[in-house]
Amino acid sequence: MKRVKLGIIGFGTVGQGFAEILANKKEQIEKNYNTEITIVGIADPVKGSVYNKKGIDLRKALEAVTKGKKIDDIIEGEKEIDSIFLASKSNADIIAEATPTNIENGEPGYTHIKTALSSRKHIITTNKGPIALFYHELRKIACNKKVYLKFEGTVLAGTPSIDFALNELAGCNITEIRGIVNGTTNYILTKMEEGKSYEEALKDAQAKGYAEAKPDADVEGFDALAKVLIMANVIMGMELKKEEVERVGITGLTLEDIESAKKEGLRWKLIARLRKDNGKIIASVKPEKIGKEDPLYYIEGATNGIVFSTDHLGEVFIKGPGAGRIETGQALLHDLLYILREI
Amino acid sequence: MKRVKLGIIGFGTVGQGFAEILANKKEQIEKNYNTEITIVGIADPVKGSVYNKKGIDLRKALEAVTKGKKIDDIIEGEKEIDSIFLASKSNADIIAEATPTNIENGEPGYTHIKTALSSRKHIITTNKGPIALFYHELRKIACNKKVYLKFEGTVLAGTPSIDFALNELAGCNITEIRGIVNGTTNYILTKMEEGKSYEEALKDAQAKGYAEAKPDADVEGFDALAKVLIMANVIMGMELKKEEVERVGITGLTLEDIESAKKEGLRWKLIARLRKDNGKIIASVKPEKIGKEDPLYYIEGATNGIVFSTDHLGEVFIKGPGAGRIETGQALLHDLLYILREI
Repeated sequence: MKRVKLGIIGFGTVGQGFAEILANKKEQIEKNYNTEITIVGIADPVKGSVYNKKGIDLRKALEAVTKGKKIDDIIEGEKEIDSIFLASKSNADIIAEATPTNIENGEPGYTHIKTALSSRKHIITTNKGPIALFYHELRKIACNKKVYLKFEGTVLAGTPSIDFALNELAGCNITEIRGIVNGTTNYILTKMEEGKSYEEALKDAQAKGYAEAKPDADVEGFDALAKVLIMANVIMGMELKKEEVERVGITGLTLEDIESAKKEGLRWKLIARLRKDNGKIIASVKPEKIGKEDPLYYIEGATNGIVFSTDHLGEVFIKGPGAGRIETGQALLHDLLYILREI
Repeated sequence: MKRVKLGIIGFGTVGQGFAEILANKKEQIEKNYNTEITIVGIADPVKGSVYNKKGIDLRKALEAVTKGKKIDDIIEGEKEIDSIFLASKSNADIIAEATPTNIENGEPGYTHIKTALSSRKHIITTNKGPIALFYHELRKIACNKKVYLKFEGTVLAGTPSIDFALNELAGCNITEIRGIVNGTTNYILTKMEEGKSYEEALKDAQAKGYAEAKPDADVEGFDALAKVLIMANVIMGMELKKEEVERVGITGLTLEDIESAKKEGLRWKLIARLRKDNGKIIASVKPEKIGKEDPLYYIEGATNGIVFSTDHLGEVFIKGPGAGRIETGQALLHDLLYILREI
């Protein structure tokens, strides 16, 4: 029986979602993968930090948070630790990095991931910033240290996208990627088609928890931009920088635009697009009017989808949730299981 | 640098499609996977058989077939060999089995696959019969002999389905699978919606090469049945027999049925469905009227698609080609590359 020890950095929505499904399926996974999984620590600046090299109880940690208590009030172990300790000096083999995305400089995730990889710990992460901005550098460290850097959840949450392209479409040349990769904006656009103004639709999205109080990351296309960078650099083998991506949000779209498209049998969608054209790279995030021949036309609400154009298969389309507590936690579980199969 | 030797059994449409894309991308693959690939033999009762342990030229074999010649007229090597020799005594490490599907008894694929696995050769195959009928037995041999048994192409050709469910949805419980897994019948139904009678639509499908002269395997649902068995036994962990699957073809559908569904905003589709309901297995292939809320509604012509219902992600939908020379050859390439990554 193999043994792996896991540390969790970031215990917000995604970290908790991952903890919940891992706690629920731990026994089944340990049996199926012939591996004993021990969670040795959690580090979160708000929810609390604790390290116990013999293992901590994930259910107790979740219970603490649900009751509004701090993790270190409930769980026995070393309390004076932080995320950097977990990523470097702890006995964890794998670090789950689930701190919030920062598309400006990738912090604090960038430092967490770099530290963990340099300390020969595998990384599983849902943090878009470090992968969008520093993928090639981080990958080099992972290769040198012979550890895995996995980040399935950075594009469509748990809906398969990265490993789907790399492993399941292996052998195909992917000539274009186009997708709806931000659920918040697709939800807003869907509501506008039902007659709501942009402001009303945004408020609705905020009430549902899809959009944040400061919604720029979604509505101005920064979230989709990060995903374009990740797909470009990881799937298409490019070295794309964020300045090279055309980015237009949905805030300029009016109800009249939506209505007039509808009359043409078209729908406005925020489309992420990536293509090589005679060596020139086309990379954009912008509203596009699309028709019924495009599977993206039928994507409603907060759902996401990607069309991969390939040489051997023509178009292959994948659709599923692109956000959510359990849906994103599933991406970390996918990455963990990938590593368990490989090591 | 690793070295693998490959034998191809069955050099019809699929075998040739695989040979073509492998020949085109061999250098690139050898570089990316740090592996030298040698094709040591081809065995086909019609196109000819040849074995050369030092390697044969795939392009020459394809040229021979295109010119209507037999492979063994053109390529140097041992001519007195057959598929069983290739599967057992040859020096091949991997056997690509691409003989026609036989859903009655799985032959000749069953014997080819069993022989190859027993001789410690990895199998990559697109042959539905042996997997639909004898998966558990064949898997046991593969496990005992510590070789891979890969068959991505048996459900949606090269469109990801099997490994998609097993690896990319790993960690999820799949509670239901429903899909359009036969392109011929979906093509016929699409044409009937355009006003053609069943007979006209079938003739059209035959002219396009989608349907065979004797179209029963498709239109009576036997092809979809084989795929239901494969998904049940491989993805859902069942031990389902073909007698346990409800099977109704599309031959009973009239233009009136199609028209009346259209008036209700529905479409008739041949749906493969698989579900566990309180321990009871629901497994069927039959025409169902589906509505616009179902992504399968939008699948046109010969395209295929599957919806996986899961605990962590809700519904995940995949759509792509389900047949074709290169599209099915891609499935063999996918499986070959999977093995190259793992060994």
